[in-house]
Amino acid sequence: MPDTVLDLTLDGPALTAALVDFRSVSGEEKPLADAIEQALRALPHLTVDRHGNNIVARTFLGRRERVVLAGHIDTVPIADNLPSRLDENGILWGCGTSDMKSGVAVQLRIAATVPEPNRDLTFVFYDNEEVAADLNGLGHVATAHPDWLEGDFAILLEPSDAQVEGGCQGTLRVLLRTAGERAHSARSWMGSNAIHAAGPILARLAAYEPRRPVIDGLEYHEGLNAVRIEGGVANNVIPDACTVVVNYRYAPDLSPAEAEAHVREVFADCPITEFVVDDHSNAAMPGLSHPAAAAFMEAVGGTAKPKFGWTDVARFSALGVPAVNYGPADPLFAHKRDEHVAIEKIVHCENRLRDWLTA
Amino acid sequence: MPDTVLDLTLDGPALTAALVDFRSVSGEEKPLADAIEQALRALPHLTVDRHGNNIVARTFLGRRERVVLAGHIDTVPIADNLPSRLDENGILWGCGTSDMKSGVAVQLRIAATVPEPNRDLTFVFYDNEEVAADLNGLGHVATAHPDWLEGDFAILLEPSDAQVEGGCQGTLRVLLRTAGERAHSARSWMGSNAIHAAGPILARLAAYEPRRPVIDGLEYHEGLNAVRIEGGVANNVIPDACTVVVNYRYAPDLSPAEAEAHVREVFADCPITEFVVDDHSNAAMPGLSHPAAAAFMEAVGGTAKPKFGWTDVARFSALGVPAVNYGPADPLFAHKRDEHVAIEKIVHCENRLRDWLTA
Repeated sequence: MPDTVLDLTLDGPALTAALVDFRSVSGEEKPLADAIEQALRALPHLTVDRHGNNIVARTFLGRRERVVLAGHIDTVPIADNLPSRLDENGILWGCGTSDMKSGVAVQLRIAATVPEPNRDLTFVFYDNEEVAADLNGLGHVATAHPDWLEGDFAILLEPSDAQVEGGCQGTLRVLLRTAGERAHSARSWMGSNAIHAAGPILARLAAYEPRRPVIDGLEYHEGLNAVRIEGGVANNVIPDACTVVVNYRYAPDLSPAEAEAHVREVFADCPITEFVVDDHSNAAMPGLSHPAAAAFMEAVGGTAKPKFGWTDVARFSALGVPAVNYGPADPLFAHKRDEHVAIEKIVHCENRLRDWLTA
Repeated sequence: MPDTVLDLTLDGPALTAALVDFRSVSGEEKPLADAIEQALRALPHLTVDRHGNNIVARTFLGRRERVVLAGHIDTVPIADNLPSRLDENGILWGCGTSDMKSGVAVQLRIAATVPEPNRDLTFVFYDNEEVAADLNGLGHVATAHPDWLEGDFAILLEPSDAQVEGGCQGTLRVLLRTAGERAHSARSWMGSNAIHAAGPILARLAAYEPRRPVIDGLEYHEGLNAVRIEGGVANNVIPDACTVVVNYRYAPDLSPAEAEAHVREVFADCPITEFVVDDHSNAAMPGLSHPAAAAFMEAVGGTAKPKFGWTDVARFSALGVPAVNYGPADPLFAHKRDEHVAIEKIVHCENRLRDWLTA
């Protein structure tokens, strides 16, 4: 056996440390993907598939429900914070301890120690989450092998401080352009000012009352904001063009089409000459009303919180699989030099998931 | 005598052609300034002074009034339009024919042919008008030798199609900055949007009713406009800063201080955190009610028009000298490859000025 093979008999904290010390900055995940594939293929209850550096392992026990446990195996660049270090207070320090090798360790521990789960299980390990969206391995698998991701409920083990964060809000970016007619600013009445024409857009934005809908018991909080504005030709010219870049963050009770229709409606009376959808990522329903999710919530305890930012749970949602974030580490330390995780949280998450899947 | 000396016995059109063919793009005026100085020093009724490449020649006849005739001797870069060419319709073509060697020719013809004017005369020939304001020779003379520019009335022989254009509007540029607080756009309620805060500024601008005051019989037309707007940090960040660049073009009944106070008042209720005066050039009164100007208007005939753009007449106005533009060429062709002047207009302007100064 090569040195790089992962020992899944280690406990969760020790396995986390081993994964952290197995460097896998985005784009350099192949050795770790190889090691994970090798370790999982040694488990007879799992069927293992691979697409690029993305590994999917599944049970086929004929259970009535299937649960997906997913995590990315890449990290942001190392910041002088490797090898990992366990201090006397039970805190494990190092790049990836929070985001998200502690979560990956929990996935692997469940894979290794629950050969006969009460629900069929799908484990997904994917690459390139920390870089551009078009490189994201979960997206690649969803496109190439959507059947590999089928399930009734998905858990993304991203850091959430051992709390359930349900779904995520969608994000729509549009460019609102206004037009005018150039003229020398000494004879401004000969032209028409495109920046002045953007005034009603800003007025609508300032007056906008964002929704705070409660979905599956979680209160979301929308937002409609200008994130950029640009206009002007020269200091003595009446400008003939202005662009306001607007970002709409919307709750998961809206479809992408509904979200876009809403933004068009908000600005319907404004003198907009061009409405360009520049970027759009759908929201994800928390899915907490699903029986599998309800049982999961009961097993892990605590109160679910809404997720405001966009996360990969939306990729599951787009496939029709309700999804939540549930991982051991505190997300506030993700991507930081002092990234860390409390080892008791790793054990806690692993045990709660095992209890739920073996009850 | 060197070849370069100007022959002031030529008629106006021929002298214009000679001046046009004597290249003097901005920054390269010295040879032409030398030639003008030499030609003027040959006229015993004139006292000639020089500052850099700026030549000032004056009569000291003890008249009750002094009139200043001013013109710049530089041109924009030559655009394959030299040497000059006189066509069969009496049109002289070439770089500087309009802006403003036809005017300079009229100045020189008056200097040479009116040794005993009914008003004392000051002739100003200056450099670097077509480039940056801080290089402008008239500005340099005004600073170094303001007494050289003293007078009761000034005529700038810039192209005005042989019509009198009175005074000029002032121009004030201010930066209006708004502030906010950054936050992730997924949690926009944690921040404060500086672009939204600029909305009331644009609303004021759109609703602004510019004044059209009548001064000395001329109707001016003001304007208050955004000429640029810029704000934003990143597509997922609530912006903490936005800047609107506003240009106020104001009529000559306002002093610079009054113009600035007006702009502050217009935006008094807007959430502006910084008000920066970025550029300010005063307006110029047309001065048409001055006796010398009234006599001038009567002599040249026609109806005076207001000047909306800023011109060097404002430098005279700042020195307390009312000033107008009055030159032979059509300003629409200034700076163009097909720049030209009708030679009959050169003769017309020269004759009207001579009539007025010898009546």
